[in-house]
Parts: sequence; C-alpha cells; structure tokens
Amino acid sequence: MDYEATFQTILSTMRQDGRYRNFITLERIVGAFPTARWHRPDGTVQNVTIWCSNDYLGIGQHPVIVGEMHEALDRMGAGAGGTRNISGTTRPHVELEAELADLHGKDAALVFTSGWISNLATLGTLGQVLPNCAIFSDALNHNSMIEGIRRSGAERFIFKHNDAAHLDALMSSIDPDRPKIVAFESVYSMDGDIAPIAELCDVAEKYGAITYLDEVHAVGLYGPHGGGIAEREGLADRITIIEGTLAKAFGVMGGYIAGSTALIDVIRSLGSSFIFTTSLCPHIAAGALAAIRHVRATPTLRHELMANAERLKAMFVNAGLPVLDSPSHILPLMVRDAHLCRRLSETLLHEHGMYVQPINYPTVPAGQERLRITPTPFHTEEHMHNLIAALLVAGRQLGWPLSSAS
Amino acid sequence: MDYEATFQTILSTMRQDGRYRNFITLERIVGAFPTARWHRPDGTVQNVTIWCSNDYLGIGQHPVIVGEMHEALDRMGAGAGGTRNISGTTRPHVELEAELADLHGKDAALVFTSGWISNLATLGTLGQVLPNCAIFSDALNHNSMIEGIRRSGAERFIFKHNDAAHLDALMSSIDPDRPKIVAFESVYSMDGDIAPIAELCDVAEKYGAITYLDEVHAVGLYGPHGGGIAEREGLADRITIIEGTLAKAFGVMGGYIAGSTALIDVIRSLGSSFIFTTSLCPHIAAGALAAIRHVRATPTLRHELMANAERLKAMFVNAGLPVLDSPSHILPLMVRDAHLCRRLSETLLHEHGMYVQPINYPTVPAGQERLRITPTPFHTEEHMHNLIAALLVAGRQLGWPLSSAS
Ligand SMILES: Cc1ncc(COP(=O)(O)O)c(C=O)c1O
Ligand SMILES: Cc1ncc(COP(=O)(O)O)c(C=O)c1O
Repeated sequence: MDYEATFQTILSTMRQDGRYRNFITLERIVGAFPTARWHRPDGTVQNVTIWCSNDYLGIGQHPVIVGEMHEALDRMGAGAGGTRNISGTTRPHVELEAELADLHGKDAALVFTSGWISNLATLGTLGQVLPNCAIFSDALNHNSMIEGIRRSGAERFIFKHNDAAHLDALMSSIDPDRPKIVAFESVYSMDGDIAPIAELCDVAEKYGAITYLDEVHAVGLYGPHGGGIAEREGLADRITIIEGTLAKAFGVMGGYIAGSTALIDVIRSLGSSFIFTTSLCPHIAAGALAAIRHVRATPTLRHELMANAERLKAMFVNAGLPVLDSPSHILPLMVRDAHLCRRLSETLLHEHGMYVQPINYPTVPAGQERLRITPTPFHTEEHMHNLIAALLVAGRQLGWPLSSAS
Repeated sequence: MDYEATFQTILSTMRQDGRYRNFITLERIVGAFPTARWHRPDGTVQNVTIWCSNDYLGIGQHPVIVGEMHEALDRMGAGAGGTRNISGTTRPHVELEAELADLHGKDAALVFTSGWISNLATLGTLGQVLPNCAIFSDALNHNSMIEGIRRSGAERFIFKHNDAAHLDALMSSIDPDRPKIVAFESVYSMDGDIAPIAELCDVAEKYGAITYLDEVHAVGLYGPHGGGIAEREGLADRITIIEGTLAKAFGVMGGYIAGSTALIDVIRSLGSSFIFTTSLCPHIAAGALAAIRHVRATPTLRHELMANAERLKAMFVNAGLPVLDSPSHILPLMVRDAHLCRRLSETLLHEHGMYVQPINYPTVPAGQERLRITPTPFHTEEHMHNLIAALLVAGRQLGWPLSSAS
C-alpha cells in the first residue's frame, strides 16, 4: 500500500471541497489586544485586528494573571514533572480546584489539561461505570462530548437541538430503572444560542437523570460572579456536573468539572484520560486561579463585553450583514459557502488587516459556513466601523449576496 | 437509581483493594530540586526529596527555560485564545514544530496539548483514514496508544511484549494488501526496558507497515542529541512516526509527532482531538523550544543522568533491594503487593521525608505493584545513601521480603 499517495489524495480532496485549512501565524502583543502581529508565510510581518479570539475578556494579557504566573514560575519552575498521581499534584492545583467548586456552588472540582479532555474523561468514565447507562445528547453537542459518549460505550440517544419535548419523548421510551445522563451545553459556540436549561432539567428530573452541562463558552461571562448561564438563571443546583474551560474567559489553558465529592472522586480515580497524562503546569493553575478571582470580582468586564456585542450586532443588522440573532456574545455572520467564506476571510486579512478565520466543516456542517465574530471589551467603536466597512467592500468584491440576509 | 450510592460503592471497593489513590500535594522549589515542600492534609508543611519525578533532567527549573517563558509571557500574554485553526497558532508553535522535525530528522512535526492527546489523535485518525487498517500493538503499550487504537475502529492485533517473532507470526496471517501499523514504545515507563526497534522494523518492513514509535520516556535522554533511542541506534529513518512529550525531559507540558509532510498534514486536518481544543499556551511552546535546544546541545546532562542511574542501581543490588535489571534510567523496585507498596511509600514519606508514589493498578497489573525510582542528575550520593537506608528500615518494619529479590 502506498501510504503517502493515500495521504495526498485525502489532502487534495479537502482542497477541492474548500475544507483545507491554512493556519494563520500570530504573535499577540501584550498591551495592544486585540491587535497582533501576523507572520506571513513569506516572512514579512503586519499588524492585524483579531476578531475571532475566544479570549473573550482579553484577560490573557492582564497584569494580575501574568504577574501571578511570573511569580509561580520563579517559585516552582515550569512543568509539573508527573501525572497528578505521581508527583504532579501541586498546591496551585488543589487551590484551583477549591476555587472552581466554590464558583459553581459544588462540593468538589477536578482540573484537566483541557476542556476537551474534561468532557472525554467525565462522560467516557460515567457512561462506563453506571451499568447499562443511557446518554441523551443534544444534537449540536461539541466534538469532545460526543467523543466522551462514544468512549463510554453507553447507548446514546440524540435529542433535537434545545428541544425539551423531544428529550421527554426519548426518555419516556426507555426502562425507568436505567441510569441516565442528559448532556448539553449552555452557550453553543457556533450559533451563539442558549439552551433552555430549566426545561431540560425538568425533563431530566422527571426521569431521574444526571444532568451534565458544558459551560465552556459561558463561564466567566454570565451570572453575577461569572459562574455561567446556570448561575445567571439560578439553576446551578439542578445541574449534577458543570464542565468548563480555563482557556477562554479565564485566558490560560486547561479544563474542569465541578460536582459532588463522590462523583469527582470517581472520575479522578477511574478516568484514564485524567490519570495517564502529565498534569497542567503549576504556574498555569496559579494563573487560572488569579484569573477566576479577578473575573468573579469584576462584573464590569462582563457588562462591557455584552454592551460591545449588542452594539456590534446592531451595526451588523443596520448594514444588512447576515448576523444570526443570537442572545449571547457570539455573532455568526452566515456565508453558507465554503469557498466564499474562505475568500472573504482572506480578503479581510490581506487587504484590510483584519483576522476572522472562516468556520467550515467539520466545525459546522457543510453549507453552514460562517465568519464567527467575537467582540471583546477591548474592541472600540472604531474597530467595529472598520470591520463593517471592510466586510461590505469585500462582500461586494466577491459577490456575497448581502440583500438576502439570513 | 441512587447515583451517589453507586459512586460510594465504587470508591469503597477501591479502598479495600488497596487501589484508592491519595494525591500528595507538593510545591517544587526552584534552585533546590529534587527537594520540594510537601503540604500535609493537616496544613503543615515539610521538605521532602522527590524520587519519582519524570522531570528526568530537572530541566523544569533551568534559568534558560524559565527565562524564555518569562520573556514570552511578557510579550504575548498567557493563553493562545483559540484552537490552532481559529487564532491559536502562534509563532512559537510554528518554530517549535520546525525544531521537533529537525530533532528527529523528519520533514514535519505537529504539537498537541499533551503526549496523551498526540497518541489518541494520531493512531485514532490514521487507523480510521486508512481503509480496513490493521494495527499491531505491543502488549505493554501505554493507555494513550490503546485509546487511540480503540478510537480508530481499526482491527487490533496484540503482539507479545518486545517479541518480533510473534509480531511476524501475526502479520503473516493477514491479507498482504491491507494497510498496517506497528505501534510500540522505545523505553517502557514502568519496567524501564527497551524495545528491539531494529527487529520490529525488519518485520514491519517485510509486510509494508507504517511504524509508530512512542519515545515519551526517551526523548531528550538518549542519542547524541537527545533524539531518543531511535537516534541512538541510527534507526530514526526506519520509523514512520516518532511521538514524544514536552512534559518529561523537556520539563514543560505538551506532546508531538514527527513524520512526513503529508502524514502530518492529514493528522492536522482530520484529528478531532487536535482540531477541537485550545492550543498550548504560546509561552509554553517557547519554553519547550528553549528546553529542546538546551538539551540537544548539552550531552553532559544525559551522561550525568545515566551515571546516576547506574550508581543507584548498583547500590540497590548491593543492598539486596529487588530492582528490575533495566537498561534505562528507570529503576523499578518490585513489591508485588498493593497494600505493602502503599505502606512502604507512606513510611518513606512520613518517617523519612522521601516521596516515592506507589505504582498500582491500573498503571501496572495487580500483583506487579512497585516503587518506581527515577534518579536525576540532581540526586547526590548522599540522597542515594539516605534512600537505601530508609528503604531497608521501612522494609524491615513492614515485612518486605527482601531476600527473594525481584
Ligand atoms: C463547547 C465546547 N466544549 C469544550 C471545548 C474544549 O475546550 P478546550 O479548548 O479547553 O479544550 C470547546 C472548544 O474549545 C467547546 O467549544
Ligand atoms: C509511554 C507514554 N506515552 C505517552 C504518555 C503521555 O504523555 P503526556 O504526559 O505528555 O500526556 C505517557 C505518560 O505520561 C507515557 O508513559
């Protein structure tokens, strides 16, 4: 078998379909967020405005967080040097877990090297240790939840996106004595819509199910203390497990779950993707802890983000740009064509110094391609005016049918 | 279903079997490695000597690495702010990948958030995109390789540990036209033994298979430039894919693969556990780059490690301690009883100020429990004498049958 030829065929098919991805090389600039240096493939460098970062609060450059990381690096060095069990549990890990439990009003929390791994480990382990478990999964759940469910080997039932009635219909059809998990997100990353958490909890409680909520795009951003949509709606106590990331609103990297002491201990003790890997660097845990404390105590950050998202959305609508009517800080401009989406993005970057990565398959279904815009508190009105002007110019140039706005 | 009761039952069974794990909370001390502060559950603190770190060269505290991380943090801030595709590719990531490709004499490399993920993503994707693929896996392969193979859905054949003849017998039994992967490690983490790479490559080449080598416990430590066992034995060009970690000899966190340009591009383009997660923090990539350059250029580090491992092993043998006769820097002392192993470890920690985590199931099979000792260039002869004295005292105290060594 000619492996190289097989690989080449795979890649050229992706290129033809407009699915081949070029990564843009950036260098963020502390103090100048959302401006970054873009390193072109030819070696030249240009400043660009980032419009697609998930550092939603621009917190990754904040002196409180960066300062704490410096201090921890000087005190403890770089890596953890082991898995959590074998010399890789440090004081910042333990403190961070206590803070996360407190943030979500839970007894305990567990930190992972990413949000991706936290979903894989938790759903993968729970669905396996609960005998004959049935997992009910929202149709638009993130890849990492899907991977966790698949890994668990549990039977999976997919309910229509955000559809509590469909969930009810599915749950009513299976043996009431079976263990059950209902898994969904709060803010969906690609459409920016928000789950009807109370309704989904009503159904889950009716059938005695565990509720599993991915708040990756909501922690730090919603609720009086940044506890997420569940906190905002006073529903955290109806959620068995809240999952989140340290890599978006908290500006570093890593993921976590919060829940009851026994549940967290089971994942800690049996989750192979938790056990068999080097733990997060101690200074990252220290930085995350500083970020959470800062974000909890600073509601103005959240207000500024929401105000900017509202403002930009209104400007999109006024300009006839096809923005999805999302109730969150995520503003998707629907393009619905892989090649056009890529060319719009390239034109913005090359001709206007603005970076918005095109979102294509497999991140969204084919035909749902979009420019996913994420304003932050650091984007000014001038940034916004420039973005809209550039989108209109590039759109006209490339034949983006803007009248038929989504 | 009473979920909490189920979780409690799982945990109490683990306690009874001696499999329940207590994490030891440490605080490493820059400048004092391998000494660390141990935070006892009661809040008191004591200095201990770490004997089970995988920061094999003690590089995680080196000023060159820590200094580079400080500089990168100040320049670019903390997190990457996105997945590799969506604003999370930065200049240090690109430079690190070029360095890793060069270290292993390959065309290209790809960085992941951990070695665990690099195995999952690569084997999981390759075994899926190669139609009707058969994967031949060493019986003692690491959990992350097993998870990757499982995820791929490919048919799996397990060959006896380090047994090229058995591999040959298995490979001869399947259709010669099927795509095939032979997956194994160089230094096995728990026994410290080393694979017969040339023999395994002979068999793999005979049947036209891809070779996949996990060098997690060898990169930085073996070969003239720290390229691993494959470099030491001049075999890197016979290995299709070399996988490694940034979290052990390179002292930070993250993982990687190195291979042909097209192969790396396929994993980059299709590996869902690579695609759907925030990328490694830029300053971690920068620190890893500095570590690799330093370790490549400093063979004395490797010589000191090996000399210390030889010295300590000879001391174990002289003292009648049951050390496995491993040809690597990893020195397992076989205890073969979960409860005794835990109590030895506890006694070393509480009464002698030495930290060696007990290794139990699922990390090793039940009955294979051990104290896995990892000396570094920073462990002095005095450290070693103290360790042996403490082991002998604790062993006598707890009835460790030391005469019947290994
Ligand atoms: C809904 C959701 N869950 C989990 C993750 C994974 O989080 P992390 O980036 O920390 O791996 C992401 C994206 O990154 C996500 O969008
Ligand atoms: C053989 C082997 N491969 C891969 C890994 C995972 O590497 P990492 O710690 O970078 O996730 C480990 C242990 O951590 C290992 O022992």
